[in-house]
Amino acid sequence: MSFLNHIRRCNNADLSQFEPWFVGPERAGFIHRDFAPTLASRPALFGHRDKAWHLDPSLDTPERRSAAMRAFLLELRAQGHFKGLWREEAYAVTWQFTRPALLEMERSAVPWFGVRAFGPHMTGYVRRKDGLHIWVPRRSYSKPTFPGQLDNTVAGGQPAGIGLHENLIKECGEEASIPPELARQAKAVGYVTYWNQSGAQLKPDIMTCFDLELPEDFTPKANDGEVHAFELWPAGRVFETVRDTTEFKYNCNLVLIDFFVRHGMLSADDPDFVPIVEGLRTREPEYTT
Amino acid sequence: MSFLNHIRRCNNADLSQFEPWFVGPERAGFIHRDFAPTLASRPALFGHRDKAWHLDPSLDTPERRSAAMRAFLLELRAQGHFKGLWREEAYAVTWQFTRPALLEMERSAVPWFGVRAFGPHMTGYVRRKDGLHIWVPRRSYSKPTFPGQLDNTVAGGQPAGIGLHENLIKECGEEASIPPELARQAKAVGYVTYWNQSGAQLKPDIMTCFDLELPEDFTPKANDGEVHAFELWPAGRVFETVRDTTEFKYNCNLVLIDFFVRHGMLSADDPDFVPIVEGLRTREPEYTT
Repeated sequence: MSFLNHIRRCNNADLSQFEPWFVGPERAGFIHRDFAPTLASRPALFGHRDKAWHLDPSLDTPERRSAAMRAFLLELRAQGHFKGLWREEAYAVTWQFTRPALLEMERSAVPWFGVRAFGPHMTGYVRRKDGLHIWVPRRSYSKPTFPGQLDNTVAGGQPAGIGLHENLIKECGEEASIPPELARQAKAVGYVTYWNQSGAQLKPDIMTCFDLELPEDFTPKANDGEVHAFELWPAGRVFETVRDTTEFKYNCNLVLIDFFVRHGMLSADDPDFVPIVEGLRTREPEYTT
Repeated sequence: MSFLNHIRRCNNADLSQFEPWFVGPERAGFIHRDFAPTLASRPALFGHRDKAWHLDPSLDTPERRSAAMRAFLLELRAQGHFKGLWREEAYAVTWQFTRPALLEMERSAVPWFGVRAFGPHMTGYVRRKDGLHIWVPRRSYSKPTFPGQLDNTVAGGQPAGIGLHENLIKECGEEASIPPELARQAKAVGYVTYWNQSGAQLKPDIMTCFDLELPEDFTPKANDGEVHAFELWPAGRVFETVRDTTEFKYNCNLVLIDFFVRHGMLSADDPDFVPIVEGLRTREPEYTT
């Protein structure tokens, strides 16, 4: 089974290439050794000691930290960082979503600072007489990230200042034209985590899994240009596509594997059952600074 | 919410009171310092070095190890160990259920050797017009362990030499008179783990969670004397009873909390959502030998 390959692919981070950064005593994220010179060039903002980076402690409120970080990131942007990915969307910097944010920062900078991102990922499914079916969207071919790949029915990053379920209801409308009264019935059923590295960028992310049972006569429709088209697939076809291909955006596989487990599509006596289920909520990799 | 209290109660082990024991290079379990003199009294069977116990390496097959262990345990039994709990039921000694057993040993001795036990725990539920209902058994008042407590619909320890699903089908018949053709439809949907200590006994167990949707007109019936009686409860009543009381056998709470999560009965925005879900599959506690 190659479900484990997807889990390994999502969890490719080598923390020995990173150092943590702190806001006061609280760890906010990780800085790659190739990005470190950028921080080192601003010693008033980021100090370095004991193999870790520390945000200027005189920035003693979330507002001050957010403003200083924004000024820094805008300079980096002017130097050509973040390219076309800048979104003008604030993410909360915190290791635990329900805790107060240490500061807020622009979404596209988040993986450069190894800050944990959050977000709801929903599987919209239909119980038909001929079995379980899942609504599968293909991402727009014009999206800057992962164009044309398959995706979770509805998914979104988590902007600061809004709850996960509320955000999901918003995304359901924007991405799939699912009306709020229907989207509200989505149920949080678990989460998946992974530690993914792409060059100097780190995503130690946690995605909350939602299920939404949709009526047979409802058809999601692309709305905001994020989705190319939706197709209703038998769950078995989704299962095989996840298992055998890389057609789904890399982290969406984890949400679907979690769905397969929760809906009893794996056997308890499969030698990979425990490793797969365990791998969906990975631990922090070991590192020595 | 006191779901976290149940998780903490199940995970009370202090590994600093234990030392691991090995069969060759493979860790088989843990020995409490109060039980260690019993092993030390048999230096031909258990050697001690580098703060760990090692089964006699000349026992070079599972059969030889099982025979030597059985002889040892029968002596202990003759000295008054295990009391009325001796079951004459062989458990596989292995950290991963689907790997070949290092040896087999009597069930009642397993927690004395800190060996991981496995087993299927099933939630039998009914989708009624008025909502989800769960079949809740009360354990027989004459059971030697946890008499009169509430339990998972069907649950059992995992004897050596039989698959988890096959064992569940057997237990469904024995404990609840659920016929094999119905029990076969049970689906493995996850697992829970915990590290529970009771005096010198350690249970670093892993229980596979199964769901079985039962027809409205089916009533489970006690069969082998393990169950006093079954009652069909609205899922909300089970939720509140788990949350607010200790009426369920301690580890059964975890299986039900996992059910509540998977069936969307917790909110994604509850600050305890991630800690609860995380706590259902705990890591090995840190210890230094």
